[in-house]
Amino acid sequence: MRIPSKHIENAVDQIASLPGIGRKTALRLVLQLLNRSDKEIKDFSEAFLTMKEHVKKCTTCGNVSDFEVCAICKDENRDKTLVCVVEDIRDVLAIEATQSFKGIYHVLNGIISPMDGIGPADLNIENLISRVQKENISEIIFALSATMEGDTTNFYLYKKLKNFDIDFSTLSRGVSIGSELQYADEITLSRSIINRQPFEF
Amino acid sequence: MRIPSKHIENAVDQIASLPGIGRKTALRLVLQLLNRSDKEIKDFSEAFLTMKEHVKKCTTCGNVSDFEVCAICKDENRDKTLVCVVEDIRDVLAIEATQSFKGIYHVLNGIISPMDGIGPADLNIENLISRVQKENISEIIFALSATMEGDTTNFYLYKKLKNFDIDFSTLSRGVSIGSELQYADEITLSRSIINRQPFEF
Repeated sequence: MRIPSKHIENAVDQIASLPGIGRKTALRLVLQLLNRSDKEIKDFSEAFLTMKEHVKKCTTCGNVSDFEVCAICKDENRDKTLVCVVEDIRDVLAIEATQSFKGIYHVLNGIISPMDGIGPADLNIENLISRVQKENISEIIFALSATMEGDTTNFYLYKKLKNFDIDFSTLSRGVSIGSELQYADEITLSRSIINRQPFEF
Repeated sequence: MRIPSKHIENAVDQIASLPGIGRKTALRLVLQLLNRSDKEIKDFSEAFLTMKEHVKKCTTCGNVSDFEVCAICKDENRDKTLVCVVEDIRDVLAIEATQSFKGIYHVLNGIISPMDGIGPADLNIENLISRVQKENISEIIFALSATMEGDTTNFYLYKKLKNFDIDFSTLSRGVSIGSELQYADEITLSRSIINRQPFEF
């Protein structure tokens, strides 16, 4: 598909550089942008420059924030002894949306993934260790993906932190609430039998 | 989902304003952008500004171009008596990709769609009529979508142009090549029986 304008071609390349967007979709989006007013295009472009310029990483937990310390770390009503370790800010948003966690977070900004060339040094791990040394943390919840990379990262963190006097936990795994047994995958189902819990009523 | 930064929120709003992209996808894309370097973000943002500033509509056919007259209209090897009327530039690209059309185009930049408030005056139709008056056009191919809006637009154009000494044609409709009969929809199948063609071998 030969686009008859190098400027459109360039805009398509930029949109198609976003993960999961192919060139056909990118062209559709770019042509929609092209029909917008000068002001709208300016707003569109500036949103990303402004974001890059102003968004900081919270110096405590690594969450994104407009300030040096994020709103969650600053909040005095949260339990600072309970730290939930997550992969990225979307996990923070997902857990916050449940409104059932009153502790604070530590955002690793990725997980250990040798296939993608991501090692422990690329992640926000040193900072977690120094938090454990300095802050009064009593429990760390590993809330990483239930994948091989997630398990590897959990294990690495556990080995680094096991000599401190803290409890470690992970999210419970099992059959999703509302889903039918016959559609659960075998590993999840077998794990949920092994980890069966006392019946409550 | 409360995003902890108004700058990220704003970037998400902008990406989510693109057709077919929801806020969850937009957040994923924006966080990927946030991890890029300053230079990359600058290139990303500027692509759209530059495009808006430099891309023109071809004064002859309405196709997008970096110049006053597009490469297709300028090409002396193309048959200027044969004009293919299409809805937008993506249709030009699709037809060009077949390499089987040697005429030129006229891009309407939309189709008549009362539901969306798009009437004949919003489209590049006056220009088509003046092309027919001035240029030496012998055939017009209506290559619009096979929808009610496409048919309405075809009919409107035909009424406007029928008094000129030109032939009119539309793309042939029928069962797609390579597809199985049982999966063709009823209207297409019945039309392809009515419009059956002499068997060639």
